[in-house]
Amino acid sequence: MPAEVRLIGLAGIGEVEEGDDVAGLILEAAAEQKTPIEEGDVLVITQKIVSKAEGRVVRLRDVQPSTIAASLSQGSNRDPRHTEIILRESRRIVRMERGNIISETHHGFNCANAGVDASNVPGDDSVALLPVDPDASAEAVRQAVRAALGVNVAVIVSDTFGRPWREGATNVAIGVAGMDPMADYVGREDCYGQVMRTTVIAVADELAAAAELVTGKVDGVPAVVIKGYGTGAPDLGRARGARALIRPPERDMFR
Amino acid sequence: MPAEVRLIGLAGIGEVEEGDDVAGLILEAAAEQKTPIEEGDVLVITQKIVSKAEGRVVRLRDVQPSTIAASLSQGSNRDPRHTEIILRESRRIVRMERGNIISETHHGFNCANAGVDASNVPGDDSVALLPVDPDASAEAVRQAVRAALGVNVAVIVSDTFGRPWREGATNVAIGVAGMDPMADYVGREDCYGQVMRTTVIAVADELAAAAELVTGKVDGVPAVVIKGYGTGAPDLGRARGARALIRPPERDMFR
Repeated sequence: MPAEVRLIGLAGIGEVEEGDDVAGLILEAAAEQKTPIEEGDVLVITQKIVSKAEGRVVRLRDVQPSTIAASLSQGSNRDPRHTEIILRESRRIVRMERGNIISETHHGFNCANAGVDASNVPGDDSVALLPVDPDASAEAVRQAVRAALGVNVAVIVSDTFGRPWREGATNVAIGVAGMDPMADYVGREDCYGQVMRTTVIAVADELAAAAELVTGKVDGVPAVVIKGYGTGAPDLGRARGARALIRPPERDMFR
Repeated sequence: MPAEVRLIGLAGIGEVEEGDDVAGLILEAAAEQKTPIEEGDVLVITQKIVSKAEGRVVRLRDVQPSTIAASLSQGSNRDPRHTEIILRESRRIVRMERGNIISETHHGFNCANAGVDASNVPGDDSVALLPVDPDASAEAVRQAVRAALGVNVAVIVSDTFGRPWREGATNVAIGVAGMDPMADYVGREDCYGQVMRTTVIAVADELAAAAELVTGKVDGVPAVVIKGYGTGAPDLGRARGARALIRPPERDMFR
């Protein structure tokens, strides 16, 4: 039988509000559409519903922009209060050009606008922030699925990040639980028996990217079940969070 | 019915040599394992078999390293002749630190070692180079599939690239035919009816990343059929090559 991975979108989750139980909504949606959640599956959940459930939505009317935020917003289309929130969510500015802000978030992610985003947020004056601890968000869903169904799944919280050198954004993993986000081919033999030296694959990012093919942006499908990637029970002994995907400064040639 | 995308690996392609017909090998493997190739499918093919079929393998014994290549190889594990080939495949050095060379290839890709790679190449003194024109390689396969089966597929040639800021590599599209490598959400409405301003998704990169979940590195599965992503006939009027994924210098804050 050929190797096959299936990406199945979960629809019908509807609007998510502060305090909602993300795991419960996902299990309900899966049951409703008769998609089983099984041992070794990977659940990819878009950041937006996690942030909403965790109350990480800020109304601009509640924000007083600083002088620097007002100054940085001049000549761009961005509301100075939106800029203010981006600055608050950043611990380092990486680049700031032509209205674009690339910064390092408090988690250590390098991305545009510190992940602060006005799309798919209700009301015309609200923005969504990244979860405070996306690895913990993922782990909470993993635990809830295990408690409800008795199965071990991996959980990825995904967001859409741009990257240097290439056009377009792709989805990446900002939170990971129940799996090693990296597949380490270092030391394994290639198909000629030679030992490969340097290939470490960020599989959690690839799973997040794959899920985006299903979630799209506007179709009301904020989560995906991935079947066939894991084999049996995940190796929880090697589980690490998405923090492992952040390159430490001393190894980073592009800070 | 839930939205579903399927990634089906093609096995049994075996060793590929210069002059081999990649499209023919893929169609044969698909027929052998009874995976239909249908209108709107996406074929993802790893760069290594394309390069081998196109004769883009160089034996180190045939290479005379330049003085600079010899000098740059001191203190690293890399054979100076291998370094020489990396330099020849580069049109610009982006960073060179601790034995790592990040350069811009003649195609315009920014990646490690100009894509020159010693893994999964037969013999212990050969390296594989990127195809000269990966978009043309993809288009040739697309045309051959159309001629053989009368169906329109999209074809992606994938390779494994690292990236700044994040650990681990992911697969990206270096050649694309039969589809627009970008999905442009700019101007579309989000689920609250607000117009999204800036989301362009590099879907060809996401398709390449998704395929890596199946091809892995050592399992003899160098191609993947993706079903359910396209809907019906691809919109060939919007087809562009992977060149569209290369950010032009004037828009690049990280050159």
